[in-house]
Amino acid sequence: MSAPPPRADGARVLADLNALRAIGAYRSGVHKPTFSDAHMRSLQWLADRLPEAGLSATIDGIGNVLGVSSKPGPKLLAGSHLESQNHAGWLDGPLGVIYALEAARVLNADGGLDGVVEVASWCDEEGHFGSFLGSRSFVGAVSETDIDAARDRNSDRSMREALQSVGLGGRARISAERGRHIGYLEAHIEQGERLETSGLKIGIVTSIVGIWQYRIAFTGEQNHAGTTRMAIRKDAGLALAKFCVAIDDAFPDLCGPRTVWTTGRITLDPGAPSIIPGAAEMLFQIRDDDPEVIERLEAKLRGMAADVTAQGRVSVAVERIRTGAPALMDAAFQDAIEAASRTFAAGKSVRMPSGAGHDAQVLATIMPAAMLFVPSIGGISHHWTENTADADIVTGAEVFVETCRLLLARASTKQG
Amino acid sequence: MSAPPPRADGARVLADLNALRAIGAYRSGVHKPTFSDAHMRSLQWLADRLPEAGLSATIDGIGNVLGVSSKPGPKLLAGSHLESQNHAGWLDGPLGVIYALEAARVLNADGGLDGVVEVASWCDEEGHFGSFLGSRSFVGAVSETDIDAARDRNSDRSMREALQSVGLGGRARISAERGRHIGYLEAHIEQGERLETSGLKIGIVTSIVGIWQYRIAFTGEQNHAGTTRMAIRKDAGLALAKFCVAIDDAFPDLCGPRTVWTTGRITLDPGAPSIIPGAAEMLFQIRDDDPEVIERLEAKLRGMAADVTAQGRVSVAVERIRTGAPALMDAAFQDAIEAASRTFAAGKSVRMPSGAGHDAQVLATIMPAAMLFVPSIGGISHHWTENTADADIVTGAEVFVETCRLLLARASTKQG
Repeated sequence: MSAPPPRADGARVLADLNALRAIGAYRSGVHKPTFSDAHMRSLQWLADRLPEAGLSATIDGIGNVLGVSSKPGPKLLAGSHLESQNHAGWLDGPLGVIYALEAARVLNADGGLDGVVEVASWCDEEGHFGSFLGSRSFVGAVSETDIDAARDRNSDRSMREALQSVGLGGRARISAERGRHIGYLEAHIEQGERLETSGLKIGIVTSIVGIWQYRIAFTGEQNHAGTTRMAIRKDAGLALAKFCVAIDDAFPDLCGPRTVWTTGRITLDPGAPSIIPGAAEMLFQIRDDDPEVIERLEAKLRGMAADVTAQGRVSVAVERIRTGAPALMDAAFQDAIEAASRTFAAGKSVRMPSGAGHDAQVLATIMPAAMLFVPSIGGISHHWTENTADADIVTGAEVFVETCRLLLARASTKQG
Repeated sequence: MSAPPPRADGARVLADLNALRAIGAYRSGVHKPTFSDAHMRSLQWLADRLPEAGLSATIDGIGNVLGVSSKPGPKLLAGSHLESQNHAGWLDGPLGVIYALEAARVLNADGGLDGVVEVASWCDEEGHFGSFLGSRSFVGAVSETDIDAARDRNSDRSMREALQSVGLGGRARISAERGRHIGYLEAHIEQGERLETSGLKIGIVTSIVGIWQYRIAFTGEQNHAGTTRMAIRKDAGLALAKFCVAIDDAFPDLCGPRTVWTTGRITLDPGAPSIIPGAAEMLFQIRDDDPEVIERLEAKLRGMAADVTAQGRVSVAVERIRTGAPALMDAAFQDAIEAASRTFAAGKSVRMPSGAGHDAQVLATIMPAAMLFVPSIGGISHHWTENTADADIVTGAEVFVETCRLLLARASTKQG
């Protein structure tokens, strides 16, 4: 019998995650907006660790950290992100980075496997400045003009100014070398409660949902709230409220089993208590992993808007402002996660779609990509109370490292 | 036959209104927020004119301008305001002030009537710093603590700071001398289109509506817009939209013939496109001249909120934040306006309630008060395109001066 395969060191994974939590700590979570001091110190912390895994580290011109190896043989890319939403959780991002670091430490050792794990921390997955800017830069989907235009959604500071202030101004951006990697693997907390409520430990992601986002604008007539009779009002705010309710009535008959839709923001103009709103706007989002479903719902939305406009009181304009295509996760990678789960979480894994967006959907545009989820306590996400049981973090790390080992072994066999 | 009674000089009234329009002009309207340079110059302009009407002028410690006479005999108080909403109309306020000035010029001349018209310009009727602060100060309803707390709704500058910067800091406030005035008369543009669409020239105001204002707060559960299934959401924003629609369904069966209600502002928290709103708030207002109607509607509102809360998904709290009682206009004053209308606008007057609030409702708490309206073109209000035909402005001035004459003559007869 050969020696048992090398496996994750659970205590080291937990210690690393807690070290990252201590940088920019906020209550039991963290506050690490993109390019904040805490974020930059976290990137440097990672860059300082990567040599332990035989990787040379670079922080590139958009804030991605890349740990690369000069060894020959198949290479698997793994990672996630280190910045957080404001006052948010300690695992959203760092979990996937530390799993990748651990896999590299375990598997890149000399005399082990033929092949290496390379590590990435993608900048601004949380979208302080844009949409997946770091991973999209790596796959070649971000132009210099895009960076010129990007601004911090909180402070309105330009991305150029932010890059300059953290010492990354003028630094080159690293792009993917086509054919270098056999694929990309990312771990993340579930951000939902499906695993927890089913007593499961590993989610094998089948697809990442598409996100279509809309600005829906209502134009009526601003008027005095005291002197304008109800019968002659053209109240844009009331039209918006009716539209929200109409969506809620119509969509359930047209949607898929996992479709979700959300009105996240409403603005009435001018927004004064004694003025009938002459204009109103809502930000509306649809998510599904089936583009046909989303297209059917969008058609309904546009039809409803045309109907309201045709009534002649308030006109409604529907503008799609974001089109995020769904991404399918690689089937063979999913099988590898399932095989690894059989060893470390037998009978405790399930295939499931991701309702949230992740860098893996961007990497999937240029290479096979896959994700695994670990449980989130209470499904809490984007809040400092977000958490996962230590034992589940460790189980996830073991499945992750084993998945990397299986994928590299299979690639080595194929190449050999 | 005696000499015909003295009457308004229409050309002088139009010239004065245009002189005030030239101070702080914005397109065809004006921009004169309370205590702006344009507002202060307008107050000084008025103070400089008042001696022409035999009145000595004071600008008091809250920015009220008062022109008073030392003559014996009955005294009628007349006026309106000189500041404007932001980028608003030229007549909303100044019309009533210039009518009052004109009445004083025509009627206070020596050898004329036994009695005088005294003139007031009330500060901040438009509510940049509060609610009718000038007229409420005059009737004794504003404390020093109220002034300490008042802030500019646009700049958040404190009222104390603003008073200091325009040279009114520390100046005394003038209060009403009980029994001095036989009553208060105010003219205003209609701010609606009832007079215009009926071809009428004078609105005799019967009452000023009460305004009840509410903050309605919805508490659900904030969550991720991608990973939280529709079935388990506690979406505070959707609950708010449904509540607006439910109000619109329920109120028509319960309201009076002229009740109006308005949702002027909606806020979703946190207001991000990918987050299900955990909290939402609306500012809601009901206006009617019958308190019983408003109370019936408020009871319905609270019942609806309790029903939603009882369903257990989102809780709704209704808080009344403003209770403005309706004000009845004096019956004898209304008769005087009607008599004056018979002379200058025969068959062209109508009794009507005011849907907008005015300083007259404040003065009505301590003396008989009345108002007359002139037509607004297209009913436009609080916008720089607000306007009234010159001929209608002149007719209104003639009716106003004649009303003052009739009221003083009647009072003089009574006293004599």
